[in-house]
Amino acid sequence: MRYELYYWPGIQGRGEFVRLALEEAGADYVDVARLPRGGGVPALRRILESHSVAHPPFAPPFLKAGNLVIGQTANILLFLGPRLRLVPKSEASRLWAHQLQLTIADWVLEVHNSHHPISGRLYYDEQKEEALRRAPIFRGERLPKFLDYFEGVLKRNPKGAHFFLGKTISYVDLSIFQMIAGLRYAFPRAMERLEPDIRRLVAVHDRVAARPRIAAYLTSERRLPFNQQGLFRRYPELDH
Amino acid sequence: MRYELYYWPGIQGRGEFVRLALEEAGADYVDVARLPRGGGVPALRRILESHSVAHPPFAPPFLKAGNLVIGQTANILLFLGPRLRLVPKSEASRLWAHQLQLTIADWVLEVHNSHHPISGRLYYDEQKEEALRRAPIFRGERLPKFLDYFEGVLKRNPKGAHFFLGKTISYVDLSIFQMIAGLRYAFPRAMERLEPDIRRLVAVHDRVAARPRIAAYLTSERRLPFNQQGLFRRYPELDH
Repeated sequence: MRYELYYWPGIQGRGEFVRLALEEAGADYVDVARLPRGGGVPALRRILESHSVAHPPFAPPFLKAGNLVIGQTANILLFLGPRLRLVPKSEASRLWAHQLQLTIADWVLEVHNSHHPISGRLYYDEQKEEALRRAPIFRGERLPKFLDYFEGVLKRNPKGAHFFLGKTISYVDLSIFQMIAGLRYAFPRAMERLEPDIRRLVAVHDRVAARPRIAAYLTSERRLPFNQQGLFRRYPELDH
Repeated sequence: MRYELYYWPGIQGRGEFVRLALEEAGADYVDVARLPRGGGVPALRRILESHSVAHPPFAPPFLKAGNLVIGQTANILLFLGPRLRLVPKSEASRLWAHQLQLTIADWVLEVHNSHHPISGRLYYDEQKEEALRRAPIFRGERLPKFLDYFEGVLKRNPKGAHFFLGKTISYVDLSIFQMIAGLRYAFPRAMERLEPDIRRLVAVHDRVAARPRIAAYLTSERRLPFNQQGLFRRYPELDH
């Protein structure tokens, strides 16, 4: 099965959580909007604006898998997890992995809203004043709360803190890698302060980065760099 | 199986999407924090702050089902859907129902952020100025976009626009009922303007409200009224 991933071509964004799963599994996939020919934003719009897609997505990312078109990042991973062997088999484990992924989705949105508290359609400079109010609350309250939560979950894994579920890697570990990497890019000063208290999360980040396929991916052209158009942005005035 | 729902006792909030599913199915359940004895917020905190729960939720609502503790509203419905016969059987239908529910979750958060753009921990009055900037964008851009999307999905159902999936009710229909009811409470003027363009959604709302079990629930004491502490709040200055 060749999977087709559809996501904005210029940013890691939410698409990156799906890319990491496909890369770790060595799956056969195409990042459609980044194809040199026939890709780009028009390839996304063709599906978003089509009237013939039975199950139209509200927004990217979405995945084509045979006849299926699947939207919502966490839902895509819910679908891919068993197929890529990136989640344990029991229903209880799959619900738990998905629950963690949905909590990561909430966290990601709060990262985004720290620099875009008014509207995703306005530029940062048009809502900088509000961001200067929201970001300190994110850094001071929400960021530690999410980090403590996930650190506590790792600590509680009866099979040890190497991974989030049992003893093998899952898509949750890959997503936590991305969160730590992104937060270090966006909030280097806050993360430097907070990292001593989340050594298990940092170890998961390092363990994921060292996986052979992920390591190869991270140095390839397929991995876009973090930049100032994505979810994670570095505005020094928002990071103290 | 007696289900135990855990949610803040004073508001409909996200718990309401789960309550509506349990009520429509005539399921055996307890709304733990609303029990006259042994309930309240302490009942929530006992689980949220426990160190022995294997799969701790990040926040309410969460559901106890036998030995399982399941968090995240859409994940709870993913679990309950098949058990309450509120979703079709095929994997493709279940992924689609869940995708729609996740898009509803995004929408709900935007409703909340229209009156709380800076922090859920601050009072409305402490972020009213920012809300006066965010709410018009919600009303003018985001609300029509979500309504048009869901109206279009209904229109595209090959089995007709009576329900979102096939020819029978699902938890998605129940959640859309709640969205329309809540939006009418919070944004009566905006909704009066927009409703002529979403007649299929309004018909789903009415069809759900007329279901015998839902109708009985809505007039019972189990249904909390909308109020100024919930997700949907009526601030006339935010509704033009």
